[in-house]
Amino acid sequence: MSTKMENPKGTWDLLPKEKILKNKVINLLENSFQKYGFEPLETPGIQKYEILSSKYAGGSEILKETYSFKDRGDRKLGLRYDLTVPLCRVIASNKQLPKPFKRYEIGRAWRDGPVKKGRLREFWQCDVDTIGSESMIADAEFIKIVEEVLEELGFNFTIQFNNRKLLDGILKFVGISENKWKEVLQSLDKLEKIGKKGVREELEEKGFDKKPIEEILDLVLREKNEKSLDELKEKLDNKLAEEGIKEIREVMNYTKLLGVKEKNLKWKISLSRGLDYYTGTVYEAYLKDSKIKSAVVGGGRYDEIIGKFVEEEVKIPAVGLSFGIDAIIEALKDQEECESIVDVLVIPVGKTEEALEATSYLREVEINADTDLIGRGISKNLDYANSKGIPYTVIIGEKEVKANKVTLKDMKSGEQIMVKLSEVKDLIT
Amino acid sequence: MSTKMENPKGTWDLLPKEKILKNKVINLLENSFQKYGFEPLETPGIQKYEILSSKYAGGSEILKETYSFKDRGDRKLGLRYDLTVPLCRVIASNKQLPKPFKRYEIGRAWRDGPVKKGRLREFWQCDVDTIGSESMIADAEFIKIVEEVLEELGFNFTIQFNNRKLLDGILKFVGISENKWKEVLQSLDKLEKIGKKGVREELEEKGFDKKPIEEILDLVLREKNEKSLDELKEKLDNKLAEEGIKEIREVMNYTKLLGVKEKNLKWKISLSRGLDYYTGTVYEAYLKDSKIKSAVVGGGRYDEIIGKFVEEEVKIPAVGLSFGIDAIIEALKDQEECESIVDVLVIPVGKTEEALEATSYLREVEINADTDLIGRGISKNLDYANSKGIPYTVIIGEKEVKANKVTLKDMKSGEQIMVKLSEVKDLIT
Repeated sequence: MSTKMENPKGTWDLLPKEKILKNKVINLLENSFQKYGFEPLETPGIQKYEILSSKYAGGSEILKETYSFKDRGDRKLGLRYDLTVPLCRVIASNKQLPKPFKRYEIGRAWRDGPVKKGRLREFWQCDVDTIGSESMIADAEFIKIVEEVLEELGFNFTIQFNNRKLLDGILKFVGISENKWKEVLQSLDKLEKIGKKGVREELEEKGFDKKPIEEILDLVLREKNEKSLDELKEKLDNKLAEEGIKEIREVMNYTKLLGVKEKNLKWKISLSRGLDYYTGTVYEAYLKDSKIKSAVVGGGRYDEIIGKFVEEEVKIPAVGLSFGIDAIIEALKDQEECESIVDVLVIPVGKTEEALEATSYLREVEINADTDLIGRGISKNLDYANSKGIPYTVIIGEKEVKANKVTLKDMKSGEQIMVKLSEVKDLIT
Repeated sequence: MSTKMENPKGTWDLLPKEKILKNKVINLLENSFQKYGFEPLETPGIQKYEILSSKYAGGSEILKETYSFKDRGDRKLGLRYDLTVPLCRVIASNKQLPKPFKRYEIGRAWRDGPVKKGRLREFWQCDVDTIGSESMIADAEFIKIVEEVLEELGFNFTIQFNNRKLLDGILKFVGISENKWKEVLQSLDKLEKIGKKGVREELEEKGFDKKPIEEILDLVLREKNEKSLDELKEKLDNKLAEEGIKEIREVMNYTKLLGVKEKNLKWKISLSRGLDYYTGTVYEAYLKDSKIKSAVVGGGRYDEIIGKFVEEEVKIPAVGLSFGIDAIIEALKDQEECESIVDVLVIPVGKTEEALEATSYLREVEINADTDLIGRGISKNLDYANSKGIPYTVIIGEKEVKANKVTLKDMKSGEQIMVKLSEVKDLIT
């Protein structure tokens, strides 16, 4: 056929080596989530457009990037652009769910946006959330999970955290009017990227006065330790800051009780995270010594949107995190050699039936085994094993059948020995 | 908000209990596939419409049910309606992949068709295929996998198999012209459902003569055993039937070598499976003693479509299977009680910090543990554990802290004992 056999722009295939790595990461994540009491949820990829476009959903910018279409009943549908809107819908339509509702969902989402490195049009999200708890234990649990997962993946990393109420308290203290807070926080969030000078310039361009800008920069760049929390509280002397500081203290205390190591966790007063909807704790994790410079995990508390989405008078507190699966896999690709999932290729030399029985035996003892399906000669089969990265081959020919043994070949070292088939498992695991 | 918080027609959420069961099934399937040397593949849910609609893809009926839309670059896209078209695309655009290419893919697909029981608009497919091998060992492997998986899932079942070449040979023998073969096979495929009389009537309505109809019915309903293969071969005496019979013999031989039990596998001459594209072996599995009456697994050999799709002169042989994950889960729901993934809920009675440390300890020893995040009293926490189906609780109050122990409660029996925290793991696993 003449059609070019390619994927739509911004989408890609994961061939086996990459998909094996991705599955490994997802399994590790799921195990950790479950250990902390989070249960899996699955929501449809297609959603009603009126829900995707509702006032408290993703907002107009995201809506511009939402794939939409109609079904045969002329109903307008769209592809989900995140896993948060489906979560809100599940909460709203399943009032019977016991609270707290601790769930994770790992799945595809779509955004028809500009394609650049690290931004695909079809991508995977991995969200973990606790719905219905105001306790800072819930916030601390997420920081602990981030530490555990990144350690298990073998990364060096730092988790930074902060609290939006403290930031709001600072802005209140320096006299910025409340409707400008988000604007200031957006600039402040870039402190690491564009530096103190850059933030100062950006805020001046936005029309803020020099004096409050300097005060803000001074406050967020001060030494950070437990003592500075006391000083800040005294200095700022407002309800918002006081609450934020109390929550920071609790998070510090609970993460310690949960065993989070001091070296991994840093309180960073300038951290606000871009998203408007955070209301308390915010945190993100960065890898050290990695080509991935952006945060690989981020999250925080958002006590307001779910309730609004559900249109109830009741406040529905929530805190959660999002793992950047694609970024984590990119980072792992450097350090991990992806191997075949096949442990052994059984190569018959004229002895097809014996080879088949041997393959069958290996599978019975839980070895991932494959055999020749093309009737190739021994050297072609060895080439195949090499091209697939299969670590061992078992060769069965006249000589082996007579001796009631098999030849086991280590494909890396090239070494080979004749052994009983029943010995193979112990020799290769 | 006023929008009704529901899913689009023909789609649904899997709440945790169902999703846990589904994950369990998928894990079991993946383990088996990997043991047989199949590697995972992931392709995008959105595909170019011109590929979905290409001549050798799903066909015009499926295309009517394909969700389609345009991206920001005015390119026409669609949601994939199966996993076979993406597989063909991967084969066509990755010529470097070593053959045989043994892959599985488990993922969502979409069809905007009529919604009825067991037919959703967003559904999961689970496809396993061997590309590039003509050997009947490949066909036999699939039958073995079906047996293994259904046994592990605890089902009673029958696998039926047959060969399309034999059926074609029968139709040739009775004098049906080749362009009518598919029409006859479609009726014959309903033999189980509508009976001999029904098939006879349907074929008469389609305008076939009585004599060949009776001959066909007579041939496909005869006793089936190894001996009847010889008789059939002699009687039909044509190349097609001969090849089909040779392949059936090989499949019988290889499945035996692979350990498939005789009671599980039945050669059924009338089996053709509806799909046009099968060229050799066909098979399907049915559950016994289950409310699921349709086949839960089906597959066969299709040696022609991939090559055509790829537009190469080279023939690309292929054989595969499709597991009906949704049907399997429906069947399992009856026999399995879905439990919480949480093993233990730790309930503090005034002792939040000690409870948190205990929770942390249990997670360290790989117990899925959760603790109170709402500050509820003990009875509310016990209710929560019950509503979630959590099998054990660990209670930590004044008394326990003093004794340096915890109270372990079995939620089913109601029994409780004071034990050391370090003893909990052994007591509950």
